[in-house]
Amino acid sequence: MGRIITLTTDFGTQDGFVGVMKGVILGINPEVTLVDITHEIAPQNIAQGALLFTASVKYFPPDSIHLVVVDPGVGSARRPIAVQAGRALFVAPDNGVISQAIGATPARAVHLNRPEYWLPKPSNTFHGRDIFAPCAAHLSLGVSLEALGEPVEDWVRLSGTIAVRRADGAWDAQVNHIDRFGNVVINLAENALEGLDRRRIQVKIAGRTLQGLFNTYSDVAEGELLALVSSSGYLEIGARNASAAEKLGIRLGDHALIVP
Amino acid sequence: MGRIITLTTDFGTQDGFVGVMKGVILGINPEVTLVDITHEIAPQNIAQGALLFTASVKYFPPDSIHLVVVDPGVGSARRPIAVQAGRALFVAPDNGVISQAIGATPARAVHLNRPEYWLPKPSNTFHGRDIFAPCAAHLSLGVSLEALGEPVEDWVRLSGTIAVRRADGAWDAQVNHIDRFGNVVINLAENALEGLDRRRIQVKIAGRTLQGLFNTYSDVAEGELLALVSSSGYLEIGARNASAAEKLGIRLGDHALIVP
Amino acid sequence: MGRIITLTTDFGTQDGFVGVMKGVILGINPEVTLVDITHEIAPQNIAQGALLFTASVKYFPPDSIHLVVVDPGVGSARRPIAVQAGRALFVAPDNGVISQAIGATPARAVHLNRPEYWLPKPSNTFHGRDIFAPCAAHLSLGVSLEALGEPVEDWVRLSGTIAVRRADGAWDAQVNHIDRFGNVVINLAENALEGLDRRRIQVKIAGRTLQGLFNTYSDVAEGELLALVSSSGYLEIGARNASAAEKLGIRLGDHALIVP
Repeated sequence: MGRIITLTTDFGTQDGFVGVMKGVILGINPEVTLVDITHEIAPQNIAQGALLFTASVKYFPPDSIHLVVVDPGVGSARRPIAVQAGRALFVAPDNGVISQAIGATPARAVHLNRPEYWLPKPSNTFHGRDIFAPCAAHLSLGVSLEALGEPVEDWVRLSGTIAVRRADGAWDAQVNHIDRFGNVVINLAENALEGLDRRRIQVKIAGRTLQGLFNTYSDVAEGELLALVSSSGYLEIGARNASAAEKLGIRLGDHALIVP
Repeated sequence: MGRIITLTTDFGTQDGFVGVMKGVILGINPEVTLVDITHEIAPQNIAQGALLFTASVKYFPPDSIHLVVVDPGVGSARRPIAVQAGRALFVAPDNGVISQAIGATPARAVHLNRPEYWLPKPSNTFHGRDIFAPCAAHLSLGVSLEALGEPVEDWVRLSGTIAVRRADGAWDAQVNHIDRFGNVVINLAENALEGLDRRRIQVKIAGRTLQGLFNTYSDVAEGELLALVSSSGYLEIGARNASAAEKLGIRLGDHALIVP
Repeated sequence: MGRIITLTTDFGTQDGFVGVMKGVILGINPEVTLVDITHEIAPQNIAQGALLFTASVKYFPPDSIHLVVVDPGVGSARRPIAVQAGRALFVAPDNGVISQAIGATPARAVHLNRPEYWLPKPSNTFHGRDIFAPCAAHLSLGVSLEALGEPVEDWVRLSGTIAVRRADGAWDAQVNHIDRFGNVVINLAENALEGLDRRRIQVKIAGRTLQGLFNTYSDVAEGELLALVSSSGYLEIGARNASAAEKLGIRLGDHALIVP
């Protein structure tokens, strides 16, 4: 049994990109256990990647290695990095996609700048295969973080993936994900709501105001809209056995105002 | 090498739900071998889930553990159950989705009501992660069925997933699946046709009557429709190198009459 | 840790076909490591399957076993074959889908005609499950190629998957793949371009002429088109942070002329 490497990308599964990354990893460490989180992040959507990854990562064993490739800057100057936080390791482009998942956990990071741990002759367009996958595989074999590159202090901490609290106490939030069932996931995490009276919270979105947070879909009538804290720990707009996104005409990136 | 756990859900693969279930399972039993059957069951479509699962399960080793989550009743009173039939184990909501696969095999079932085998603080909306996945993982470690909950006798046996034979001998059947190639799969299993003259069977669907069952697509001309017994053991309407569903305008749930 | 078996098909992932093949393989060799390359080859599109498979296979360990099922001729007279080339093994229908990946490597092939290595009672429509998967699994256990069937010399070498060089030195090429990002992949491999001046190369497609090959997307302005050698080693038309296929209205099978 090997260490777990999870994979989260915007590559989709039709082009063989993910299979190729797995081939590279298994060529370096055949004992590793590979688990897909998702490969359906909207192309180059860092905020959605951050949200789905953050919601998922806590359910994996604490010493897992997490490979996240949502990388609009591939081929430009953005750095490839690896980060250790607690016993977990993260390998990703330095664009903030992993920062929300790490949160306030003390962490140390390196710039992946040692080509001896990459594939030979790396391309300009597929660092997932040529840099991130081999570095994750070497980490899974016990290679130290420091061996893979120079320490960096100023790696990107992305605040844009988290709702902003305004002076009046309301949150200016955003739709960062719409799931398969049409549930609308908003970038406000449950812990922000601690101590508030959930019946008083109002969610204003798409010209509607939803009053109060419910516990589960079956608390409302068939087809009716509700706000709740989703199983992933984020504020969510759902509809009982129906698509809230369709009912409200909501799309990724739409804004919401949450009034406590 | 660990025991096999198969996964069949209506979760899709874009939201990370399946990855999270795998993380939970591997956190409890890192030695298990995970195999996806499908995650593209139409949302909350128990009949389709039952058909695809039944068609697949017989190709897995007999001591596999099968996790099936198509769960329109999540958060309501429907019970989570585990069932042993032969050497196979099944973990699913008690809504009939696994009953057709078990068929007449003698089986014993328990209500999964021992929270010490769940994740702590289970949500109301994602029992796949919080109850079903951890219970399947504990079973894979050798925990007994009885440890996970109280025996139940009255678990749901779903007849609606199987075609109904009428007094005149014909079957009132239903389209429970349309595959990637546009083949239309009907909920009449091959064994129901034993002893019949296959050339005489008529399939009436979408205003058309198809005469006789063929052996394979190449028995008819390019683009032509035919009825046959599919590789999954169900009655199927296909078209040679074309989509039968498109040609006939057929959708999930449409009815068919099969006259022997 | 077992040997790797990769899977490349046009089955999609919604119908359970791939899961079933994995169940069959694991029933024969529970120690094998299964890796999906892609299951989203356009139905029965051998040229696309050949391109994606060829681009992927070189990133897997050299002793991997590759199972490729894109099989428009299933049920007809086309032969199921297995091929050894170097230390790699290939299991596929004899329709050329694997020939480009094998290239000029010395290879020996057998016709998979020994039913004792198949599932009992093979269907006419799903040889992936009944013939290819079990034969791949037996190979992974160390069964010799020759045990699985008679040697064949005349297995299909498909030239149609590779661009044709005309008398005037230009290549008559074809769009064999469009990836998730809208990049247009053309069936002209990088090695054909060796020794040419890349700035002089012209790509004529969809009524447009693109001058010169660039190194990476960020060499052009946002949204602008460019030709480059993709990370998979093929000629590609891309657009910076945009879909080239959409901009040009390109579809699978469209022609391109490459003038050196």
